[in-house]
Amino acid sequence: MRPNPDAHPSQFRLFAFGPDEILERNEIAHDTVVDARKRFPIIWVDVDGLSDIGAIRELGEEFDLHGLALEDVVNVHQRPKAEDYDSSLFVVLRMPEIGNRVSTEQMSMFIGDGFVLTFQETPGDWFEPVRQRIRDPRSRLRVNGADFLAYTLIDAVVDAFFPILEDLGEQLEDLEQDIMEDPRHEHIPLIHQLRRDLLMVRRAVWPMRELINSLLRDDHPSIDTKTQLFLRDCYDHTVQLMDMVDTNREIISGLVDMHLSAASNRMNEVMKVLTIIATIFMPLSFIASLYGMNFDPSKSPWNMPELDWRYGYPFVIALMASVTGGMLIYFRRKGWLGGKRASKAHQRVTEREKRDTPDSKAQ
Amino acid sequence: MRPNPDAHPSQFRLFAFGPDEILERNEIAHDTVVDARKRFPIIWVDVDGLSDIGAIRELGEEFDLHGLALEDVVNVHQRPKAEDYDSSLFVVLRMPEIGNRVSTEQMSMFIGDGFVLTFQETPGDWFEPVRQRIRDPRSRLRVNGADFLAYTLIDAVVDAFFPILEDLGEQLEDLEQDIMEDPRHEHIPLIHQLRRDLLMVRRAVWPMRELINSLLRDDHPSIDTKTQLFLRDCYDHTVQLMDMVDTNREIISGLVDMHLSAASNRMNEVMKVLTIIATIFMPLSFIASLYGMNFDPSKSPWNMPELDWRYGYPFVIALMASVTGGMLIYFRRKGWLGGKRASKAHQRVTEREKRDTPDSKAQ
Amino acid sequence: MRPNPDAHPSQFRLFAFGPDEILERNEIAHDTVVDARKRFPIIWVDVDGLSDIGAIRELGEEFDLHGLALEDVVNVHQRPKAEDYDSSLFVVLRMPEIGNRVSTEQMSMFIGDGFVLTFQETPGDWFEPVRQRIRDPRSRLRVNGADFLAYTLIDAVVDAFFPILEDLGEQLEDLEQDIMEDPRHEHIPLIHQLRRDLLMVRRAVWPMRELINSLLRDDHPSIDTKTQLFLRDCYDHTVQLMDMVDTNREIISGLVDMHLSAASNRMNEVMKVLTIIATIFMPLSFIASLYGMNFDPSKSPWNMPELDWRYGYPFVIALMASVTGGMLIYFRRKGWLGGKRASKAHQRVTEREKRDTPDSKAQ
Amino acid sequence: MRPNPDAHPSQFRLFAFGPDEILERNEIAHDTVVDARKRFPIIWVDVDGLSDIGAIRELGEEFDLHGLALEDVVNVHQRPKAEDYDSSLFVVLRMPEIGNRVSTEQMSMFIGDGFVLTFQETPGDWFEPVRQRIRDPRSRLRVNGADFLAYTLIDAVVDAFFPILEDLGEQLEDLEQDIMEDPRHEHIPLIHQLRRDLLMVRRAVWPMRELINSLLRDDHPSIDTKTQLFLRDCYDHTVQLMDMVDTNREIISGLVDMHLSAASNRMNEVMKVLTIIATIFMPLSFIASLYGMNFDPSKSPWNMPELDWRYGYPFVIALMASVTGGMLIYFRRKGWLGGKRASKAHQRVTEREKRDTPDSKAQ
Amino acid sequence: MRPNPDAHPSQFRLFAFGPDEILERNEIAHDTVVDARKRFPIIWVDVDGLSDIGAIRELGEEFDLHGLALEDVVNVHQRPKAEDYDSSLFVVLRMPEIGNRVSTEQMSMFIGDGFVLTFQETPGDWFEPVRQRIRDPRSRLRVNGADFLAYTLIDAVVDAFFPILEDLGEQLEDLEQDIMEDPRHEHIPLIHQLRRDLLMVRRAVWPMRELINSLLRDDHPSIDTKTQLFLRDCYDHTVQLMDMVDTNREIISGLVDMHLSAASNRMNEVMKVLTIIATIFMPLSFIASLYGMNFDPSKSPWNMPELDWRYGYPFVIALMASVTGGMLIYFRRKGWLGGKRASKAHQRVTEREKRDTPDSKAQ
Repeated sequence: MRPNPDAHPSQFRLFAFGPDEILERNEIAHDTVVDARKRFPIIWVDVDGLSDIGAIRELGEEFDLHGLALEDVVNVHQRPKAEDYDSSLFVVLRMPEIGNRVSTEQMSMFIGDGFVLTFQETPGDWFEPVRQRIRDPRSRLRVNGADFLAYTLIDAVVDAFFPILEDLGEQLEDLEQDIMEDPRHEHIPLIHQLRRDLLMVRRAVWPMRELINSLLRDDHPSIDTKTQLFLRDCYDHTVQLMDMVDTNREIISGLVDMHLSAASNRMNEVMKVLTIIATIFMPLSFIASLYGMNFDPSKSPWNMPELDWRYGYPFVIALMASVTGGMLIYFRRKGWLGGKRASKAHQRVTEREKRDTPDSKAQ
Repeated sequence: MRPNPDAHPSQFRLFAFGPDEILERNEIAHDTVVDARKRFPIIWVDVDGLSDIGAIRELGEEFDLHGLALEDVVNVHQRPKAEDYDSSLFVVLRMPEIGNRVSTEQMSMFIGDGFVLTFQETPGDWFEPVRQRIRDPRSRLRVNGADFLAYTLIDAVVDAFFPILEDLGEQLEDLEQDIMEDPRHEHIPLIHQLRRDLLMVRRAVWPMRELINSLLRDDHPSIDTKTQLFLRDCYDHTVQLMDMVDTNREIISGLVDMHLSAASNRMNEVMKVLTIIATIFMPLSFIASLYGMNFDPSKSPWNMPELDWRYGYPFVIALMASVTGGMLIYFRRKGWLGGKRASKAHQRVTEREKRDTPDSKAQ
Repeated sequence: MRPNPDAHPSQFRLFAFGPDEILERNEIAHDTVVDARKRFPIIWVDVDGLSDIGAIRELGEEFDLHGLALEDVVNVHQRPKAEDYDSSLFVVLRMPEIGNRVSTEQMSMFIGDGFVLTFQETPGDWFEPVRQRIRDPRSRLRVNGADFLAYTLIDAVVDAFFPILEDLGEQLEDLEQDIMEDPRHEHIPLIHQLRRDLLMVRRAVWPMRELINSLLRDDHPSIDTKTQLFLRDCYDHTVQLMDMVDTNREIISGLVDMHLSAASNRMNEVMKVLTIIATIFMPLSFIASLYGMNFDPSKSPWNMPELDWRYGYPFVIALMASVTGGMLIYFRRKGWLGGKRASKAHQRVTEREKRDTPDSKAQ
Repeated sequence: MRPNPDAHPSQFRLFAFGPDEILERNEIAHDTVVDARKRFPIIWVDVDGLSDIGAIRELGEEFDLHGLALEDVVNVHQRPKAEDYDSSLFVVLRMPEIGNRVSTEQMSMFIGDGFVLTFQETPGDWFEPVRQRIRDPRSRLRVNGADFLAYTLIDAVVDAFFPILEDLGEQLEDLEQDIMEDPRHEHIPLIHQLRRDLLMVRRAVWPMRELINSLLRDDHPSIDTKTQLFLRDCYDHTVQLMDMVDTNREIISGLVDMHLSAASNRMNEVMKVLTIIATIFMPLSFIASLYGMNFDPSKSPWNMPELDWRYGYPFVIALMASVTGGMLIYFRRKGWLGGKRASKAHQRVTEREKRDTPDSKAQ
Repeated sequence: MRPNPDAHPSQFRLFAFGPDEILERNEIAHDTVVDARKRFPIIWVDVDGLSDIGAIRELGEEFDLHGLALEDVVNVHQRPKAEDYDSSLFVVLRMPEIGNRVSTEQMSMFIGDGFVLTFQETPGDWFEPVRQRIRDPRSRLRVNGADFLAYTLIDAVVDAFFPILEDLGEQLEDLEQDIMEDPRHEHIPLIHQLRRDLLMVRRAVWPMRELINSLLRDDHPSIDTKTQLFLRDCYDHTVQLMDMVDTNREIISGLVDMHLSAASNRMNEVMKVLTIIATIFMPLSFIASLYGMNFDPSKSPWNMPELDWRYGYPFVIALMASVTGGMLIYFRRKGWLGGKRASKAHQRVTEREKRDTPDSKAQ
């Protein structure tokens, strides 16, 4: 077991409590721990930062943890999972990092008889409310067992994903609004980034769902049936998270379609302007060039007699005007020029809404 | 348990009834409820709007409801689910909001021995026909148990999705018609909206299917086997709803393809007009410019002798006409100009239809 | 139970038969039915059109049918399903309508001890061959039980989908051929229509597969194990139908890709023509315009001395010809002009085919 | 049981053998068969071509085959399946046709006590090596039972798909190479054809996998456990075939993406050429036209005095050259002209390869 | 059993060891092996290169290996699988080739009572660290059984895929960066290559996951329950590998979308330049051509009187300038010219980031 060279320095927090008393320390000296285990029914050791391998190993010996599990604590790229060992239940979770929406840190936990040990990868966590509740003598945490504390911590980790998903959902709605109003190429990397973020949440939550389901379904000596009732709630939350992720992913697919369609629509608009301009001015320029040819009407009566007409020039201008007019009529028929009639589907939507709203009010 | 700040004010409705008698109140004072439970075999308390936490808590005590379930009643973003507690079966459903096609409200229900409690998020519901049937002394509701009332309410919630899906289906057909006739960019946000609405229905109905299936399959003390027979029907409806959702989603995918193809087809048309115009007028303009060059035939016999020909100008006009004619022939060969032959596939479809119709009539 | 306002008028057909005798009536008066049930081992009542609610209710009483099932008979948008009731097995199927490829009607069936009742939504059915076989005294139908008759009818319904799918498959092949030869925008609605038709078949056949599988797997009192052996065949057919549907759906996806690629290919062709024309004539026109400028060589020796050259005009024409030639060489190098070399992959396909054919013949 | 009108004429081959003796006949007269069954432990009757219904029916009686199974032998569009009948195990396989890569024929087989009957749809098969092994007195086939012969035949059918898939894989690689070098529209029908071929293989192999798995898993009286060990190998082969099919289908999807991207890339190239030409020559032509206007500087000092300048013409030419130069600089900045810098990703790939190769060699 | 003609020459390595002693040889002569099996509790024979069929057959006899398994050793296109034979457990794995990221070689292994045999396809392997650990007298490998050695080898094979996937992930990130900055057509083959590489890893790892799961779940006589605990870790790694593969495949799909969108965006840019140029210069050129017509104002007062105006030429120039100005205003309104306002979504992202960062720090 080697420390990860990038590991954060370790900080320790020890909570030991029973219904009436509570002890809070920022160190985990051997004597303190032994003493606390004797005096209090529940003890929670929280290690934040994994560089102090020595202390972790000592905890392992003190609480009789399995070597394989301890290795997984230090190698921080584990997938969420739950494993039963003789002395304790080992659970690995992924927790969103505080202040960095798009990455997760590993949170490992041992749940045993009268103790919960937690190991976090980076400083900062989502457990402050839990600590407050422990300090409150009327809290349920004070009277329930270690498994209830473990449930509370798992619940805190799962619930930490909700604000992230809500934030992603809001961004998605902003983006949707934006793309409808004015789709731009810059939206595509944003879409891509949202998709990556959703994948990240999915990779963290999906195995946590499996894990909590296995805690619910299987018989773990460290988990009470009463606590399983609470875990059912926690499981519902993971299902709901997956639901939100999947819905958002489908909406993102729709956005990409919408963006592609908008891009091709805009290209169409550009092409229409070009075509209209070219189609009007090319014939006009041709007529003008025609009368710029150096055939001299004075040399042969066949040579552009218009040049000698009294109203030759107005005639040519009139010809050009009529060509332009004809083109404009053609474009209007093709629907390439202004006058956007509302499409039938839109009309029907509007009618339907008119029809619906008063009805429902009246009911 | 804290009230949601956005919760609607609570309204109460109490139905208590047996085969012969019925009591209807708009309040749920403790004495009224206690008295009604004694006198009537079935009691239905309906709470519409969740701001009156006190009354909800009182109901919880009166009917011995589990605290976790009551929390879920007030936190209105639950996924549909069914949970067995000692005293009652707790069911969460999602119900389309009256007068707002695209959102759902939470409908929580407790089914116990002789009582049904329902909690709705927003005012207005789909239960008016059920209330009418309760008031009708010949109704089956009057003689069956509380679980039959619960079934009737679940059925009302499930069936409320049918008009929504039919409405979405109609919109989809309108849209299909529209896109075939005249595809426009404005259709894309409509398509996207329909897809979102379908996702919303899917998210509500899918877990309700699971839930009703579990009511059917598992042994719930509050649900009679006779009522399970009726729930089977209800389950069929959820399956049918999912079927409609999935079919419509596939049709939407097809519409997006159709729209993209139409857009690229239109671009093609625009490009063809541009190309035809440019290809005809560029050579013509070039010829005209050629004879606009200031080479003077009087200075050198090599300088554009056509300018001195008697029929020089008609010759040039004829040259231009033949260039134009050649181009038009080329375009017609390429099939870029009018004369749309019906495609073979269309011909065959027509033939097949001719062949089929009389045959089948004759049978 | 209310009649559907769009229900067709009811027509009745009664078959009662045993190994030796047969009775055929076009009415189902109470006495006739009672008498027939006494005299014949098997009785088949076929109701075509569901407007005569009274007669249907009477049949329900006569054959002791469950009320929920009768409601499903009249509400004709059921999904295919099989439900066991005490007195009979209730089966709902969807049957292609005669003379209308793209829609299905509901066919409900009760299978009981010595009777089969069928209820069809619209006139016309696929059972004429079954009726012929009943009339034939040597037919197996005459000696087997009611469940064998039911199997024969289910088999007729399932097999009625094969000609539809074969027709769709043929249309698909025509379309494929067409799109390869000359892809057009009109093909897209055809593709969309085929996709919808396939979805319709899928929605009808998929639940029938489940249904027949449940008849095979589960123990139904009305279905003999010997008949289950025959139903296995029927199940194989539904699997094969689903197979054909899925294969065709994949081919349709491929067609859409092919169509999109063809459209962009054609756009490319159009653009190339435009670019070639513009790239050749723009420089030529520029040169011509250049010599159309009114700089007079007689005023300054710097003013376009070519105008005074003896061979100035031929020089300019030669200049234009060489510009055109250079452009053509450039386009040929880019491969934008004619001379389609067969692509390597095509060559290899041809070689492979040459190699394969004689080998295999020789074997 | 009616013969298929397109059925090939039947040819018969009879193999009867034991460890020491072997009998080979090209006819299956009743006496020959009866006699062979008495004298030899194993008998294999192979019917190639299904038009001789009489002989097939006679075989059915001789070997006590079930009527339903015999019907499936003659109706040659069965899906691969295995069905247990009292007297024998009935297996339907699909076998690639000799000399026609893209279609399969039905191969039905009965495996019973001491006999194997095979029925093929078209002449030619993949069993020649099996026949050679039977003729070899040292072969395992001579000492094992009929089920081992059946396994050998199934194995031959499954293995016949490998060269087809390898051929498809090679074509795919050729195509990939081609599309990378020079993507053309003609590749799309080739891709579509490959996709169809893969679908065909998938439709044949997928149910064979199920079938062989059921032979492995279930207890069939005709299949020995020792033979099941060999069938496990055969099952692995079908899994591997499906793997190859799925991988190739994913690669095809990638190719379509690549092709679309290449097409849009080429369109981009064409558009750039057009835009560059137009952007350079339109301003030049405009300048030239400007000086072609008939404003006479001798009439007004405001009329294009350049025409009278000594260096007017060179000035205009210089103006044109500077406009062209400016445009070229603009295009080069936009990266539309030559000078393809290697993209960063490519550079990194190259660096990585350099880095990797010697390292790995050194290890 | 025939040797593969492309098989590499065989090299042999024999490790025999117990807690205290160790024997290392580069040959596997019969006597050496027999002797080593007697003297040491564990023996590991490693065959690298499969051309020496004789030696492999001899090993088969010595260790009593099943013939079918030995065939699979030599036919090197097996899918990973685990098969129980009487005397040993046969496992096939696929191992990345040293120095060639994109292909795998077959690694077959027999695990029996006191022995592990490994057969590799090509020279070079990932087992050097394992050999080092064996040589280390304090290693756990020296005291555990043959199954622990087998686990160590499987673990080495599985872990060899991590650097490959990390390398692919890095390439993907480079590519993502590149495509965001400057998407090019050359990226598409790179994307395709990455997709192929991921498919290759998937094809190798997916069945290994199944295989290890079956080793965990089922009862294999050669695998100890204590070793199964370690294999659980190995199984987690395969799950994590599949996770990485699937995430990367989704990211690749997103990249293709991004690339397509970028390509169409660039086309749009090109088209805009063309349209702007054409729309400005076509009217200008037309005006210039107009005044290039040879209508002589001296012949008729109707003939372009501007030509005779004192300020005619400045008037025309002003006209042209105003047309150009009008066009530029039009383009600016359309947003086709410079001045990229940041899109709203981007603004909101920036705001959100500002808001988030200090908050989180403060916590």
